[in-house]
Amino acid sequence: MYNRTELQEAFNHFLEAQQLVKPPTQLYEPVKYTLDSAGKRIRPVLLLMAYQLYHENIDDAMNPALGLEMFHNYTLLHDDIMDKSAMRRGQPTVHSKWNDNVAILSGDVMSIMASQYVLKTEKNHRRLLERFNQAAIDVCEGQQYDMDFEQLQTISEDEYLKMISLKTGVLLAAALEMGGIVADAPNEDIKRLYDFGMKMGIGFQLQDDWLDCFGDESKLGKVIGQDILSEKKTFLFIKAYELADKVQQNALDHAFKTHHLPADDKIQFVLDVYRQLELDELTKQKSNAYFDQAHAALQSIQVEESRKEELCLFLDYLKGRSF
Amino acid sequence: MYNRTELQEAFNHFLEAQQLVKPPTQLYEPVKYTLDSAGKRIRPVLLLMAYQLYHENIDDAMNPALGLEMFHNYTLLHDDIMDKSAMRRGQPTVHSKWNDNVAILSGDVMSIMASQYVLKTEKNHRRLLERFNQAAIDVCEGQQYDMDFEQLQTISEDEYLKMISLKTGVLLAAALEMGGIVADAPNEDIKRLYDFGMKMGIGFQLQDDWLDCFGDESKLGKVIGQDILSEKKTFLFIKAYELADKVQQNALDHAFKTHHLPADDKIQFVLDVYRQLELDELTKQKSNAYFDQAHAALQSIQVEESRKEELCLFLDYLKGRSF
Repeated sequence: MYNRTELQEAFNHFLEAQQLVKPPTQLYEPVKYTLDSAGKRIRPVLLLMAYQLYHENIDDAMNPALGLEMFHNYTLLHDDIMDKSAMRRGQPTVHSKWNDNVAILSGDVMSIMASQYVLKTEKNHRRLLERFNQAAIDVCEGQQYDMDFEQLQTISEDEYLKMISLKTGVLLAAALEMGGIVADAPNEDIKRLYDFGMKMGIGFQLQDDWLDCFGDESKLGKVIGQDILSEKKTFLFIKAYELADKVQQNALDHAFKTHHLPADDKIQFVLDVYRQLELDELTKQKSNAYFDQAHAALQSIQVEESRKEELCLFLDYLKGRSF
Repeated sequence: MYNRTELQEAFNHFLEAQQLVKPPTQLYEPVKYTLDSAGKRIRPVLLLMAYQLYHENIDDAMNPALGLEMFHNYTLLHDDIMDKSAMRRGQPTVHSKWNDNVAILSGDVMSIMASQYVLKTEKNHRRLLERFNQAAIDVCEGQQYDMDFEQLQTISEDEYLKMISLKTGVLLAAALEMGGIVADAPNEDIKRLYDFGMKMGIGFQLQDDWLDCFGDESKLGKVIGQDILSEKKTFLFIKAYELADKVQQNALDHAFKTHHLPADDKIQFVLDVYRQLELDELTKQKSNAYFDQAHAALQSIQVEESRKEELCLFLDYLKGRSF
């Protein structure tokens, strides 16, 4: 059994062996650029870990792992166009390094290449691809809800949780599920793997929302309050408006709706209200509750406890992250 | 055996029966809008005709036919963003009716839905999807070459033919090939079907270039000379620069490089040179030569002549088109 770092290295090694760049180079260079840019390889590593629950030789699972990572990076590439984000992982995004058209078309080809890699799997390729396609569609729906939310005044907690399930949870769930499918795991376990990934993904996103407000900038590698500045409807934003009294609501409105308010003031005004409403603790509790549910799902999987160790460590690693 | 019109109607009927619009509606409405907008359904009809060479019951071939039409319409949707085209088939394009982000994301989901429909096929689904994916990647490469050509001063005839093979030929070829694969046709026939479609597709594109210069506006439904105005590197453009003497080259440069030249003058200047160089006849001959090769490929397919009649009529219909 390989640990997280070993799986990440094995995956990167497999990725490097692919001949991604060929003519027309303008189409394929951004594909390689996107895939090469660091990233923690969370999804392929999870797929390989799920596979490892049942089989030793991870070679058979490398193609779908790359398909999934390819798909994930493609969604980021297109999301960055839609969000007009200039930077990702400390590097210029594809549309800012090249242009929008290059970013659209390179993303398009990545989507198909992702499907090709998933299809290369020998066993259970039809079921695998059906589940992969469903996850891919769910992610598009999640992105659409996220964009819809920008136009809405109020969003319920349930609506928010549904959106992040689709946008973030599904792909972690699919990673684990696909690992189980390639490994020919029992159907019940495949469902549990999916559930494990989904709960972990929701916990992960809630934690992401929390880190943007209360994280340690030096460990996070970025300035806090970015979600506040971009008025993103995070879990904290939604709960704040739900729980605020009249005075607090006015304070939020003042911070979010006053033009030309200095960035630092805006962040501090909002964080003050978040703290008054104890959203620091509430968000942390909620995130941890999902991580706990993920842990329970992992425990219910019918393989020897020792085999689950790497997935358990992975969950702890995500839960304890400050980055 | 069904004729072209019957197959088109059967396909439209199948399409109408799909529940395409569901929440989030902002994501799916443009999918339906794109698929509903007229179109001659050339690719699904070709797929069904190829299938009909071997089997009567076309129901089994409807899912991949829709997958292919979905993919084709998705490429048009994204091409329209890249080309900043406001209208298609007499209707506003998705990005001009909604916006760029809607067009990007709806296109993305169509690409995955296309793959889902292809995968729904009972027989030979893996081979079918492998060939479909390859065709999809070829189309992206063709679009990239087309965009690359905009930046290049000179393009050879070979380079141009390669580009249109990828951008237009491949998808007609794939339509026929996929019909053969679903029908479980002999491998040799599947190759011939692909060849038939490829040659027909190249002939079709050359004819398209010709129609823009020498077509009948009333039948074409649009004003001629649009490719000249947009300085598109068509077969005629490329051959004109290849064959022009010094005087003709100056005339072309004058027409293409003078700013603020009235549109009608620009078109007439260029058409004059095209006529002097007999590009009217040359392009027509070249297009017909490809249609003839398509016909020969069709003849070589090992089924009764009577079964090929609809495909033969379809080829004549494309060859004789003035629209």
